[in-house]
Amino acid sequence: MKNIVLLIIFTMMSLSFSGCRQTEPREEWAIVLHGGAGSARSMAPEVRDNYLNLLDQALEVGTRMLQNGEKALDVATRVVVWLEDCPSFNAGKGAVVTSDGIHELDAAVMDGSNLMAGAVAGVRDIKNPILAARHVMEDSPHVLLIGEGASSFAQSMGLPPVDNSYFSTPERLEQIRRIKMKKEDPDPKGTVGCVVLDSKGNLAAATSTGGMSGKRWGRVGDVPVIGAGTYANNATVAVSGTGHGELWIRRCVAFDISALMDYKGMTVKEAAREVILGKIDKMEGSGGGVICVDKNGNIAMEFNTGMMFRAWATASGQKGTAIE
Amino acid sequence: MKNIVLLIIFTMMSLSFSGCRQTEPREEWAIVLHGGAGSARSMAPEVRDNYLNLLDQALEVGTRMLQNGEKALDVATRVVVWLEDCPSFNAGKGAVVTSDGIHELDAAVMDGSNLMAGAVAGVRDIKNPILAARHVMEDSPHVLLIGEGASSFAQSMGLPPVDNSYFSTPERLEQIRRIKMKKEDPDPKGTVGCVVLDSKGNLAAATSTGGMSGKRWGRVGDVPVIGAGTYANNATVAVSGTGHGELWIRRCVAFDISALMDYKGMTVKEAAREVILGKIDKMEGSGGGVICVDKNGNIAMEFNTGMMFRAWATASGQKGTAIE
Repeated sequence: MKNIVLLIIFTMMSLSFSGCRQTEPREEWAIVLHGGAGSARSMAPEVRDNYLNLLDQALEVGTRMLQNGEKALDVATRVVVWLEDCPSFNAGKGAVVTSDGIHELDAAVMDGSNLMAGAVAGVRDIKNPILAARHVMEDSPHVLLIGEGASSFAQSMGLPPVDNSYFSTPERLEQIRRIKMKKEDPDPKGTVGCVVLDSKGNLAAATSTGGMSGKRWGRVGDVPVIGAGTYANNATVAVSGTGHGELWIRRCVAFDISALMDYKGMTVKEAAREVILGKIDKMEGSGGGVICVDKNGNIAMEFNTGMMFRAWATASGQKGTAIE
Repeated sequence: MKNIVLLIIFTMMSLSFSGCRQTEPREEWAIVLHGGAGSARSMAPEVRDNYLNLLDQALEVGTRMLQNGEKALDVATRVVVWLEDCPSFNAGKGAVVTSDGIHELDAAVMDGSNLMAGAVAGVRDIKNPILAARHVMEDSPHVLLIGEGASSFAQSMGLPPVDNSYFSTPERLEQIRRIKMKKEDPDPKGTVGCVVLDSKGNLAAATSTGGMSGKRWGRVGDVPVIGAGTYANNATVAVSGTGHGELWIRRCVAFDISALMDYKGMTVKEAAREVILGKIDKMEGSGGGVICVDKNGNIAMEFNTGMMFRAWATASGQKGTAIE
């Protein structure tokens, strides 16, 4: 009888504590960045090496800032500016081309310390859309500005306009030519993003994109939709997505990861897997991925595609770059 | 000893079922609509009566359709078209004016049966933005189209363009004049929306707005942001928001209500109160409200402002209109 009572008490304790996980020790800082997700394709070794090298350079920019004690929001913004300026990624210089032959860019940033957020969508003449998003967050009462209204605001904040052709690269022009000739499918998955935990415990997320190649004029994906492609909350996690934006919006991907951690006690890895593999995978569409860093510096990089360009580093010495 | 074992077993059962609430019997159908929230202000009795009468007329449109077995998505869309066409609400005809003296409209619709969604933002020449949002959902691979790209798409779907002045009313032109003379504050809270459960168990949400009066050119609020001002999921709830859109976006209000029900077992009333009173109320800003109907036909109408124009009805005979 005593054994039965003990067994029951033990079972009760298991039940009571099942929602409560042991937290890993907090990292002093952590950073993850991505340069988009996509179907596995064969890349020439020198192209692959070049991408890994670029990811490493972007990581180095962020890592150095974090070692100098700079804050998460500044690090995430700066790394995304670097990726926007790099013509090899689909954001800023090197953005994809719409079906009408122009570039329309989206970006968002969120500060986990106060849930402030800023975003721009459908802008055509702002060199670094992430800086415009940052101004929306810090210098306007709004969260989301679109189109020419966003450009006009960015210029009033001192961001000089660039000609739309600034964003073009020979590769992107060739890509839209092939899409129009039906030799290539529109690719919804290129994006750049960065999530950061700084040594003060603040989280931030920043994401920027040229959107879906060959997209319809005026189409906006998940990136500037807070809670879909971008989210940060010091209480839980910072998330930046890259994928088939329409699915990310319909599933509120970034906020859902935070909600699963907050309300169901999942770890960041469990929550990211649940959303990307358990929910997105069950919908039609071509998928993508997320990068996440939680309030304790734990990292998750989950994708349901063949590859996601990514890099990560933590104060404790974890560091890497990967594609597949 | 036997008593102790029974007590322990009883305690275990309580623990196991604590996340599981008794559900009220499912209503055959239920509908809630809103015409915006705002600070309590003294209204002339005839103005107040007129609003209650308009809310009742809109409710009648939806109720009749539900009694005829029409589906949630069609009912929510039709009711919002009615409210857009009514010049007394801030959506469609009667929309507020931006700081630049024009009308820019946002709308979104979501089908809880398949998580399909459509939205338009910053459109200036679509008579019924909710119909454009519906076309985005059903006739494009996208979720969100903005500005002239959205208008171009809407026209290609057979929605004829209207001149921007169609949306103007003498009251809105007087309002922006007073805002510019600093005699009145910009008001972020007018919106219309409708949430519906149909007799097949399908949920739908539709929301439409002229946005914040005196808003900056290009500003987009929560309405077309899926998960912020509009959300529907047959597994949980349909939500339509009206409020200070920036707060609704930063808090992912509509999806959070669904997540609290799904992951924490809250009732729709508990979840709506937690988000509107427990979370939004703690942020700066002027608030607003939400209308919700869950998968069992339970209704919640929560607001942290002095008033929210609203009406509701269920198959079991609940019916009403209210402002305060």
